[in-house]
Amino acid sequence: MTRKIRLGAFLPGGGQHIAAWRHPDQPVDGATSFEFHKELAQTAERGLFDAYFLADGLAIAFGGGIEGGNAKVAGFEPVTLFSALAPLTKNLGFIATASTTYEEPYNLARKFASLDLISKGRAGWNVVTTATESAAHNFNLDQQHPHAFRYKRAAEHVEVVKKLWESFEDDAFIRDRESGRFFDPEKVHYTDHKGEHFKVRGPLNVSRSPQGHPVIVQAGQSDDGRGLAAATAEVIFTAHQHLATAQEFYRDIKARARGVGRDPSHVLVMPGVAPFIGRTLEEAQEKYDRLTNLIIEEDGVALLNGLTGGTLDISGYDLDGPLPPAPPTEGMKSRQALIRQIADENNFTIRQLYQWIATARGHFTIVGTPETIVDTLQEWFENEAADGFNILPPWLPTGLNDFVDLIVPELQRRGLYRTEYEASTLRGNLGLPYPTNSWTVSRQSAHAAE
Amino acid sequence: MTRKIRLGAFLPGGGQHIAAWRHPDQPVDGATSFEFHKELAQTAERGLFDAYFLADGLAIAFGGGIEGGNAKVAGFEPVTLFSALAPLTKNLGFIATASTTYEEPYNLARKFASLDLISKGRAGWNVVTTATESAAHNFNLDQQHPHAFRYKRAAEHVEVVKKLWESFEDDAFIRDRESGRFFDPEKVHYTDHKGEHFKVRGPLNVSRSPQGHPVIVQAGQSDDGRGLAAATAEVIFTAHQHLATAQEFYRDIKARARGVGRDPSHVLVMPGVAPFIGRTLEEAQEKYDRLTNLIIEEDGVALLNGLTGGTLDISGYDLDGPLPPAPPTEGMKSRQALIRQIADENNFTIRQLYQWIATARGHFTIVGTPETIVDTLQEWFENEAADGFNILPPWLPTGLNDFVDLIVPELQRRGLYRTEYEASTLRGNLGLPYPTNSWTVSRQSAHAAE
Repeated sequence: MTRKIRLGAFLPGGGQHIAAWRHPDQPVDGATSFEFHKELAQTAERGLFDAYFLADGLAIAFGGGIEGGNAKVAGFEPVTLFSALAPLTKNLGFIATASTTYEEPYNLARKFASLDLISKGRAGWNVVTTATESAAHNFNLDQQHPHAFRYKRAAEHVEVVKKLWESFEDDAFIRDRESGRFFDPEKVHYTDHKGEHFKVRGPLNVSRSPQGHPVIVQAGQSDDGRGLAAATAEVIFTAHQHLATAQEFYRDIKARARGVGRDPSHVLVMPGVAPFIGRTLEEAQEKYDRLTNLIIEEDGVALLNGLTGGTLDISGYDLDGPLPPAPPTEGMKSRQALIRQIADENNFTIRQLYQWIATARGHFTIVGTPETIVDTLQEWFENEAADGFNILPPWLPTGLNDFVDLIVPELQRRGLYRTEYEASTLRGNLGLPYPTNSWTVSRQSAHAAE
Repeated sequence: MTRKIRLGAFLPGGGQHIAAWRHPDQPVDGATSFEFHKELAQTAERGLFDAYFLADGLAIAFGGGIEGGNAKVAGFEPVTLFSALAPLTKNLGFIATASTTYEEPYNLARKFASLDLISKGRAGWNVVTTATESAAHNFNLDQQHPHAFRYKRAAEHVEVVKKLWESFEDDAFIRDRESGRFFDPEKVHYTDHKGEHFKVRGPLNVSRSPQGHPVIVQAGQSDDGRGLAAATAEVIFTAHQHLATAQEFYRDIKARARGVGRDPSHVLVMPGVAPFIGRTLEEAQEKYDRLTNLIIEEDGVALLNGLTGGTLDISGYDLDGPLPPAPPTEGMKSRQALIRQIADENNFTIRQLYQWIATARGHFTIVGTPETIVDTLQEWFENEAADGFNILPPWLPTGLNDFVDLIVPELQRRGLYRTEYEASTLRGNLGLPYPTNSWTVSRQSAHAAE
């Protein structure tokens, strides 16, 4: 089978662009409308996307204070929302973000295993450590744990969750009414994890799903983040502005995966892309300008403050002057560096910077026609920069509809993208292997050795 | 409006009776089948039930060890399951159990608020403290916290969750594209909770639903449990074998509610009932006997061990002899006492005891015809023992179908039960008041005082 581009869709109901809600196409209550999320899921499925992707934060991203222009203050908890969407779709995967810092492994393993069963094998877990001070304040802390601590805890957390997902071997259930044997006790396993951060006995009280367990997704860009991703992730979400840096990241991740004994083709690298799509370049540029002009100044400033974890306080600076230097952060180190890089490379003022970031918080923004946009995607895909892309439509549903109606046919015409789903599970569509239960492997090895 | 009987349905997909799965009517994989849960929800809605109720445990209830006959080893996490069922139903409420001991208030508040939004106001939270040693072992503990500690934490937990659910006032969203004001900052509130067990700043990042916030449900029977229930619960689930003890409980709860300044009619007491329904008494008795005969001895013993939190080890005793004395427990105190009471009153051997408990873990089992069963329900309802009932069909779907097809018409014939839903929210159907946001109340009082 020829290698195909994988596609995820970032579809927060309120739109991606900070001013999306002010655009007349965008339902103004989209963020809290279940019906709108249902429409988006069904459109993504029509576009044969691998997965619907939702980011998540465990606090309102107020930035400096409570600003009345922030449309991202309220939404749904991702797993709850995806569970409701699962029976209304057939093939679309659902990748939900959840935190290793503020959720217990047993609870997290259960809800994702439940979603995976309900969706018949279409769940994915985007592993995040949650890097905001405001989240820490919602979980009994005065300040968040240091970056390195969070990543050590995350690595152990993922290990525990994966062990819990192995509690039942695939053929653990006998369900023989006559003999009264519901399951085979030899195929149900205590987890018995005792580590630095967690002590979890198990077993999990949810069985395995048709895809074994949810797909593991990661988005870390720092050295700690890359290490965790290469060791555990099956899909890696990443943010790059240029082919060269995307290639550097892609090659680094594949090398790290190889280094820990993994098949690099089982670690899919998917940069984020925010496309403004026009039938002509002028039309695309008009779309970009229209949204940019809807940004309210104080919301732009709050966005910059929020994205840098509150450490970059620009409230006293001239918006038409350069970005001030920032102190070191325990928040999203890589995001802060990326924002600085964008400012430096483009020689942006503070205002120009937040206008650029407003589209997709630092992800690659492309303004173009279907042909020029697909040219770029193809270049990245064919030159070790991407196995696929996470599409972040700047506003909804138009940005998604444009992609499905204009970009998808062009991708298909060039033979770069599927024309129908290959499988009913997320893992199957992504071409990722079924994760054999390690207990089963041990038993088989023991047998073979006899 | 005449007072009507409220009905909840306990519908674990695997059936309530410990041997349900061995019954030919019961889908043998019901516990892990989403399609089967969907069928049950739709039948409950056909029967005009107020709510679908799911218990929950944060560990596999193995009892003594891993027994292959236990069909309750795997299921779904309740909120995830209910979220998927919500869009497939219209009026049925969903009461999910979640733990104050092992979940953080911010996470719990979010998932229930999300379910409440998705279902358009049909969510309820059954507050439990989780009273098993096995659950403690899944959450970093060597042994569970003492009973009194759990209840103190629970009281504070519920307080925090309710505060978080008030983060947005009902009219907080302006969503005015022109002015760029998405919400009114004066109507979004920090929680700023600092207590003995929790420190939570807020606000919650989920908005309010059509019923304000989920209905609060509680099932504590101990003195601590009754205190918490009377202070915070809107629906109280309870277990009684006799009219007299049910009345004692009912009157005590209503008096306690009055004592803390609440309207006792806003605290609904709903005992559990497990009915075996026959067109004749003989047919009903045959149904009971048939299930009883399907119980496997070791599973019956494990059930008794499990229900008493593992403290009552009867493995060495003669099953046809009396129940041995038990040491004090930090688990479900009231459940242990109830089981002892049933054994004493009926002069049961261990075997007879587990056969009785097997039906619905100590809930009131009625074997009868539609007429005799409704006689009992009516007697309890009209004599200060119940505002309604939680029905625990011993096996599924037959036990539920029998109730909907035989009991519901008889209840309706006597004018005791609705003939159509009164409202689209759970709160509306239960006749519970809309919870006014306390921030709004404060503002209005301040205005009135000016």
